[in-house]
Formats: sequence, structure tokens, C-alpha cells
Amino acid sequence: MAFNFPFNPTPQSIPPDDTLLRLRYLENVPVHFHPLNPLSFLLRAARVYPDKIAIAHPNVEHPVYYTFAVWTQRIQNLTYALIKFGINPGDRVAVIAPNSPLIADAHFGVLAARAVLCPINTRLKPHEVTYILEHSGSKLILVDHEYIHLVKGTNIPCIISQDTGRVGDPYETFLSDGRYFGQEKGWQGFPAEADENAPAVLCYTSGTTGRPKGVITTLRGSYLAAIANAHECQCVLFQLVRYDFSKLEFKDQLLILTFLRVLPMFHAAGWTFPWANVFAFATQITLRTVNYTHIWNHFIRSNVTHYCGAPTVQVGVVNDPLARKLPQKVTAVIAGAAPTPHLIAELEKKGINPVHVYGLTLTYGPFTRNYAQPSWPSLTLEQRSKLMARQGHAFATAQEVRVVYTDEKYNDTLVDVPRDGKTLGEIVTSGNIVMKEYFNDPEATMKAFRGGGFRTGDLAVWNPDGTVSILDRSKDIIISGGENASSLAIEQELVTHPHVLEVCVVARQHSKWGERPMAFVTLHPQHVTRWAGRNHEFEKELKEHAKTRLPGFACPEWVEVVPELPKTSTGKILKSEMRKVVAKL
Amino acid sequence: MAFNFPFNPTPQSIPPDDTLLRLRYLENVPVHFHPLNPLSFLLRAARVYPDKIAIAHPNVEHPVYYTFAVWTQRIQNLTYALIKFGINPGDRVAVIAPNSPLIADAHFGVLAARAVLCPINTRLKPHEVTYILEHSGSKLILVDHEYIHLVKGTNIPCIISQDTGRVGDPYETFLSDGRYFGQEKGWQGFPAEADENAPAVLCYTSGTTGRPKGVITTLRGSYLAAIANAHECQCVLFQLVRYDFSKLEFKDQLLILTFLRVLPMFHAAGWTFPWANVFAFATQITLRTVNYTHIWNHFIRSNVTHYCGAPTVQVGVVNDPLARKLPQKVTAVIAGAAPTPHLIAELEKKGINPVHVYGLTLTYGPFTRNYAQPSWPSLTLEQRSKLMARQGHAFATAQEVRVVYTDEKYNDTLVDVPRDGKTLGEIVTSGNIVMKEYFNDPEATMKAFRGGGFRTGDLAVWNPDGTVSILDRSKDIIISGGENASSLAIEQELVTHPHVLEVCVVARQHSKWGERPMAFVTLHPQHVTRWAGRNHEFEKELKEHAKTRLPGFACPEWVEVVPELPKTSTGKILKSEMRKVVAKL
Repeated sequence: MAFNFPFNPTPQSIPPDDTLLRLRYLENVPVHFHPLNPLSFLLRAARVYPDKIAIAHPNVEHPVYYTFAVWTQRIQNLTYALIKFGINPGDRVAVIAPNSPLIADAHFGVLAARAVLCPINTRLKPHEVTYILEHSGSKLILVDHEYIHLVKGTNIPCIISQDTGRVGDPYETFLSDGRYFGQEKGWQGFPAEADENAPAVLCYTSGTTGRPKGVITTLRGSYLAAIANAHECQCVLFQLVRYDFSKLEFKDQLLILTFLRVLPMFHAAGWTFPWANVFAFATQITLRTVNYTHIWNHFIRSNVTHYCGAPTVQVGVVNDPLARKLPQKVTAVIAGAAPTPHLIAELEKKGINPVHVYGLTLTYGPFTRNYAQPSWPSLTLEQRSKLMARQGHAFATAQEVRVVYTDEKYNDTLVDVPRDGKTLGEIVTSGNIVMKEYFNDPEATMKAFRGGGFRTGDLAVWNPDGTVSILDRSKDIIISGGENASSLAIEQELVTHPHVLEVCVVARQHSKWGERPMAFVTLHPQHVTRWAGRNHEFEKELKEHAKTRLPGFACPEWVEVVPELPKTSTGKILKSEMRKVVAKL
Repeated sequence: MAFNFPFNPTPQSIPPDDTLLRLRYLENVPVHFHPLNPLSFLLRAARVYPDKIAIAHPNVEHPVYYTFAVWTQRIQNLTYALIKFGINPGDRVAVIAPNSPLIADAHFGVLAARAVLCPINTRLKPHEVTYILEHSGSKLILVDHEYIHLVKGTNIPCIISQDTGRVGDPYETFLSDGRYFGQEKGWQGFPAEADENAPAVLCYTSGTTGRPKGVITTLRGSYLAAIANAHECQCVLFQLVRYDFSKLEFKDQLLILTFLRVLPMFHAAGWTFPWANVFAFATQITLRTVNYTHIWNHFIRSNVTHYCGAPTVQVGVVNDPLARKLPQKVTAVIAGAAPTPHLIAELEKKGINPVHVYGLTLTYGPFTRNYAQPSWPSLTLEQRSKLMARQGHAFATAQEVRVVYTDEKYNDTLVDVPRDGKTLGEIVTSGNIVMKEYFNDPEATMKAFRGGGFRTGDLAVWNPDGTVSILDRSKDIIISGGENASSLAIEQELVTHPHVLEVCVVARQHSKWGERPMAFVTLHPQHVTRWAGRNHEFEKELKEHAKTRLPGFACPEWVEVVPELPKTSTGKILKSEMRKVVAKL
């Protein structure tokens, strides 16, 4: 780790010499059983690598660096502070923060207090935040200083973090008070949750239609999903001692596993990576914002080996001026949309290995992965990219992913579509990597689970090789002259044009065909000047390009070059915003 | 994979085109839950990598090679054959076989039939086998042709495998009949186990004192232990597509993960590796016997990346004439005893990365691992080896490992010994990686679990860094003049002499001191001739060597050079045999 840090954690962050890293169960747990709980990852990391950096938060006014031993003590302090405050098992504790130690702490401390973590998207409007706080019934809010305006309208008590890690920060006072309250009883001073099916996290979906819904996940599911993410993303601390006896030195990288936290942790509990990284003993570098200069500085200087991000974030990564070929192996976990051939090539040129996964907040984040196949080395990049764009197969610890239609005659029985790569159906799954329920909404839960599987709402085909390919969200299908045109498929073809950076295709009303596709595109920075003042010509060129690659009903009737596309806080293009634009046309 | 194989599986091994790789639960399983069962690894591997070689069995008269798709069909056939035979849920099915497809099949097929697998050590005497067959109440025996003599005395029905994989082999007939019986209903034709705490395997401990005891493990424990072994042994299928755009070719190894099955699968269910490898999509090469020529041929030609073995097997590996520096990265999982500095150096020189783990049949095989530490590169090999010899920390999915004494005044409460690296205690653990119970022996189960932890019977100290170091099995401690001398510690010091290959230290009666250590040693092949006819001189030299490294009470009073040491089928030195020798002196 290439950090130079003159930093001392607060005195109450330092564990006593005789700290006992062991959970205590009140209920009678059999000798041959222990309830699955991601909290066990933390205690194990503190036992095995007490002095390894767990959390590095360098790109702020007051940088902090916590070892696993110190961080674990801080989480214990948080647990006591929550208990002192009056948080009871099952209570909800909200957190509103960018990537920072605060939200990382909360992923463990709230669970240790047997409460339910409710992470709130920092990009929401105050009234949306108010709705979530009220609907979740949160008893306490842990809030970062930058987002205090979001909680102005609420009477719920708040603990403010100035994100300094220094004495005097209200959050530090809260933690220190927790330490005193605990009277040095440590992890033995409060009982651990004995029911692995107890709720762990309550995340709210973005709610593009209607009110946001609360998604309840369990300790068991979080534990198993985190292990799966560590495994599938090859997040393993290699103990590779390649000792060079001729030179008397270690040759290969030893004990390097550094996860750069680009994806916000408030998004689907960070796809369970806040726990997966601890399971794998990784150092996590937290970035408050997606800043490509910081990202590349860490790639180059901090031995980053892993990060997650939507394709739009990956596009920013490969196009940054600092981008270069990296000496270490970096795994980029990509979800949210399929990576394009161009993006895959650009990542690989930099030594970054893309792993394409797919999932939803309701599936703890990723639950499928696109697996490399032995035949790939003989394919062209474009052929391979088409295969890599598929959502793939259900991954480790997940149940099978299926593409089905509903037979309403037989109690909504789920019937598999043929594996022909053509028949459209809905993706369903089930098992440990599926949410437990919608919070306080049994009707919505029943609807999501009708037929005995979890309905993702994503429309897909099942390929002959067993992989699934998403064509669209149900609402994103464009019905043009009775044909189903996938806006996703159209986007994938448009972005093959070398001058296109990003694209968003939505349906626009059409007097003759009912709907026709309209495309909004941004130009690649290198080509903006080339088309300056001649956007119309480019729009025409792109339409011609589309005609060579798409059936007529799927070719965009309208193309418009725009300076940028609206995005969610997680870098997903906001189709809903573009639909509003189109509705006014 | 560098196999040239003109091999066609039997017609009934070929799955139908429309095979559905999905389990069917009779009981009502919630949408957000699926019972943990290693069988799910198999179905997933067959979905993701149907055409990858799952099992290669090359070093026999009739080599066989099965892809995941074919192997999965064969296991389905086995399941139907067992059901047709009359095997009911909970019944025990014995298997007596060396590493071969038969025993690999049984690890999945018996579980799919909801029966309990009872693997029997092929090195046992017929009367011992008879005892286990009777005690387990096995209803059927799957037996390899080489071990028919072990089941001559029983009336239990046997299915004999000639280990040919060809039509006409009785085992193949059994499988084919299963396929017909299944009427092509596939995995939907029988119900899957809905209780993850149902028994999976019944292994018998070697029973050095008294009768062998049956150890019952569960589906949940097997699933979690297998995932842990894959993770800790870095058994991950790397999807590392390092595409070299200048040369238009793939640079790094893609999709290579090959596990050489050296450790017998009948030993503690192969430490759960029969499932761990399938979880990781590894190709398993099965070797009927520990043959170092075969091992090296596979290291060199078959791209082996992983294998397991006791130190004695590892000694054989590094001393084989074919041994050389390997281009690929190989992980050697070492358990059964601590690796010596010499062995570690020899492995590393060959590019083999030793991972030291510790466990028992009663803990599903390994449950601790010795973790490399950041400080190691600055240490000498001998310093590092001393640290690598420690049993380390509890590993992924396992609960904490503790060193305790029993406070009999308070209901046998387990009390931690101080972490001083000196105070002797017993290793205990608990949680998912601990057996469920001794089969039909509640008294022994209660004794093993008394005080609320599983008592391993291994004596150890707890080091200040939280690692544990085994000093000995309770019975292997030598009490010399009131001092506890660890036979293991003495062995570790004696083997530092460069001419010593292997060593076994046991207690011998002594009129003055009660007991004194006696050492039996074998010489390294390179040095046998040097000491030919002068063994007495070497014995004297070794005693002097010991005096420079051990306290007086631990120095061997007697040393004897022997041509070889008796070993178990798994390569462990049989101390019990040497004790018998000593008892007659």
C-alpha cells in the first residue's frame, strides 16, 4: 500500500490488548451449527490480519486509515453506541453517506446491534428521503455532513459525521461514548443474532414507477451472496510465495488485494461487497465521488486489484487522460448494462479484466455472471464481445436463473421458454440470493413471488448454451408495428459506431407504427470537434449505420446528439428522464 | 488439457438434448431460500461448462474422460439405480474404492438419492471392513474390483466396478439400468432433499484406540466446507482474458484449473474436495495410487494447478527424479502434519506454493489455515518455516478455533488458555464445519461436545498472534521426568538435519525418567550410501544435532535408522506401529 499517512485513530478506536473477537449467542446454538452472518467475516479478518489496512479513505481533507483490528474496535463501539441510544433488535437505522468509513462501519455495526440497516441514496430529493425514513420507521439516522439538507424535514434523531475520524467529530463522539458505555465488555457484552433468517438490510428500489419499495434481505442471504461475489470476482488473497532462491527474494505479489470502492455502498448494500471484501481480507479504498483522476492515481500507486462499476463508469475509466497499461492484474466487475465490444477492448488493453455480472437490489446485487468459454480465444473481439454481453448463468450460491412465461390457466405456473435464443420471456430466480420480502407490503411480495419464483421484470431470451440475454426491462420494449424492438439491442448496435460514446434509446409515439425508436447519443470526446456544427450529418450517418446492423422495425426513426445523458447516482442512464423529454415532442 | 483420448462414454452416459438440470423439492421451500447441498455445484457446473472435462482417469488400462454434462448424466443414472435397488432417504450406501470415477460419482449420486455415503478405507483389514459395514447398516456396497476380497465375508449386496467405463462392466450395467428405470424423467423424477441438516456422509475414524467411530456430517456442512476449501486453497477458475492486442492472442492462462487427486477420496470425504473442485469447475484427474511418476507427468503435461497431500507425500513429490521447476503455478495443500523448512524450500524451488491446513475427519477435513503474513518476506527460510508450521487460524466459513482447558467445577466450562505460546491446552471448535454426531453413539457425541465445543483431542498452545500450534495428540506427549515433551516438536527439530528424510518419535519406558523419547529415522536417498554400514555413527551425530536444538528432557535417548516407516493409506506415519515396536524393546 503506497499511502503515506501521519494519522492516529482516536484513542477509543484502539482495541485493548486482551480483546476477545468472539460472538456470544443468547439462545442455545448447537455445537455443530452457527448462524450465517457477515459479521463473522469481520471478526475473522481482525484475528488473521489485525495490522492489515482494512479501510483507507485518502482523498479527503482529513484522510483516515484503519487496520482490521482498529476498524473492528470502531464497529464494536458503534454497536454499543446504537444499543445505548435505544436501538433494539429489528429496529431500522438509516445511513445517508457517500463511500466513507461511516457507511462501511454501518454495514457491520448495525447488524451487530441486531438492527436493520437502511442505506439511502444520496442523490434523492428531500421529499423522497422523508418518504423512505417514514416508511422504514427508522429510529436513528447516521448522516454525512454533506447530506444534512436531506434530513432537515425529519424529527428522527441524527448522528452527523464530519468525515474526519478526528476527536471532535460528532460521529467520533458517538463512537467514543459507545466505547465507554460498553465498559470494556467487548463482543461479549451484547448477544449475537441466533436466527440467520433475521433481516439484515432494508434497501429502497429507485421506484421509477410509483413509490419506492423497501427490500428486506437476510443475514443468511448476505453471507452467501458476499461469498459468491468474492469467488466470482476472483477476490482471493493469494498466498503466493514464489521465493526466488537465486536472488533470495519474493518474486510474486504477496498478500495484495485492494478493492477500490467506486460503486456507492448505498446502492443495494454495495452489491454485498462491503462484506465480500472483508471475507477476502481486502483493503478497501473509499472514494466519496466517482473521480477518474483519483481512480487512476490509485490504479497506478495503490496496487488496486478490484473495482465495480456500471459501463458508464467504465467508459469514464478508459477515457481518462491518465489511463495506461497497468502492471498488476485488475478485475473490473461490470453490472447495470452489458459492456460494449469497444469498452471490453479498451479495458483489456489496459490490463483490466472485465467480469460481466447481472442482478438487482432484490437479488442482493449480482446473481449471474458471464463465464469465459474455452472457445473464446479463437473468436474475433466483436464475436467474443457479443457473447460477453450476455447475462450468463446463475453464479455461486445462487439458484438457477430461468426465462419463463406464465401459464395463467394453472395458478400462474412458470413455464420455461424454449432455449432458442429467440422466444421472449421474463427472468425469474429463487433461493438464498433472493430478497426475503418487500417491507410491510405482503401484497407486493406475493406479486413478486407469484408462481413460485422471483419475477425480475427483465425480459430475456434463453440461449441454446443455457445463458440468458436480457433484451429489456418490460417497460423498455418498443412495440413498432407489432414487432418487439429491444431498446437495449438497438443501443448495443448504435454504440458500435466508433464516434459514439453513450446512447439511450426510448419509444416515441408514431402515428403509423404506434411506437418507433428514438436515440439520444453523446459523442466520444475525441470526435466532438470533428462533428461540431454538423450534428445533423452525424445523426444521418448513425441512422445509415443502424440500417446495416438492425432490422427495419428496430432502426431509430430519430437520432439526436446531446452533450450529455442524465444518469442515476450509480451511473445508470436515466431512461425515464429521456422518456419525459420524448413525451413533450 | 493434454490428454489424447479415443474414448466414448457408454450410450447411457450421454444426456438427452433437452436435459433439465434442476432439482425438484417435494416440501414447500420458500422462494427466498434453498437448502444448502453440494449437489447444486454439480448441476451448476453442467449448466456453465457442459463440455469441460470434469473427471479424467488416465493412468489405467481403460482410461476414461467425462465432461461435466456426461458426468452429471452418469450421476443421475446412479441416483436412479440406487432408488431402483431400494435405497431410501437416510439409508447408508458404502463405497470401497481408490480414487476413480466410481467414488467421485458416489459423492454426488448417493446424496442425490437422499442416502448417506459411507466411504471405507481400502487399507483396512477384512474384519475391520465387516465391522464398519455392520455398524453403519449399509444396504449396498459399491466396490472396486481390486477390493472385492474386503467384502467376501458380508451378505450385503455389492455392485462391482471393473473401473473400465465400458459396456459390460457391472457398474456400467448398474448405471445403464438406472437410466432405463428413470424413464428419461431426469432430475425431476425424484425429489431433492429439503432439509439441509440431513446427513450427507458417514466416515469412520481410524480408531487407533478401540473400535472405529462413525462420523455423521450434513449437507449444509459439506456445502460450506467445500466452498471454504475452494476459497482457502485458491481454487478459482480465473477468467483472466489478457488479450495481447499487438499479437492478437491470449496471453495468460484461460480457464485452467486442474486438481490432481492424490489424496484418497475415502479419507474424510476427500476433505470435501470432491465437491469443492466441482464448485470451482476444476478438472479432476484421479490416480488410483500415489505414483510419483504419474504425478510428475501430470504436473508437466496436464497443467495441474492444485493437489492435496500429507507431508510424506510431498516429500515423495519433491524427491522424485522427474521433479523440476514448473512453469505454471501449483498449489499444494498440506495437512496431516506440519511441513518442514526443507520441504517448504524444495516445494517453492519447483514453483509449488504450499498451503498448510489442519483438520480432522470430524471437522470435514481442514478447518484452519496458516496465513502468510506481510512480515514474511523479511524473514529467513527457517524463521518463516517455523511460522508456516503453525496450524494458524480458523478458515472461511469455520468458527473460531480455540485452545482451552476444562473447568470441571463449572460444568466442564471451556476456558481459554493464555495466548502466551506456552500454556498447553486442547483445541476446540464449533459451528458449521463440525460433524453433526457420532453415528448411533449419543454417549460419544455428548463426550466430544462436552462444555459446548467440539474437543479435537489435539494439544496445542495459543500464540500471541492468535495462531494455534499443535504440540501433539494427547497420547503423543512424552512425559519425561515430569516435563511434557512434544514428540511433534522433537520430530520437527530432528528433520532439520539435512540427511534425514523422515522421522517418528515415540515414548519409551525409562526406569529413571518414566518415559524418554525414541526416534526412528529414514535417511534421504542421496545420503544413504554415505552412511552405509555406519548407521551407528549417524545415530550418534543426530543425537548431538538434537542437543543443540532441544531442551535435555526432549532430546531422544535412542535413535535408530530404519529403511522405511510404516504409514497409513493417506501417507501419515503410523506412530501406533512404532509404539508396538518400542513396547517389545
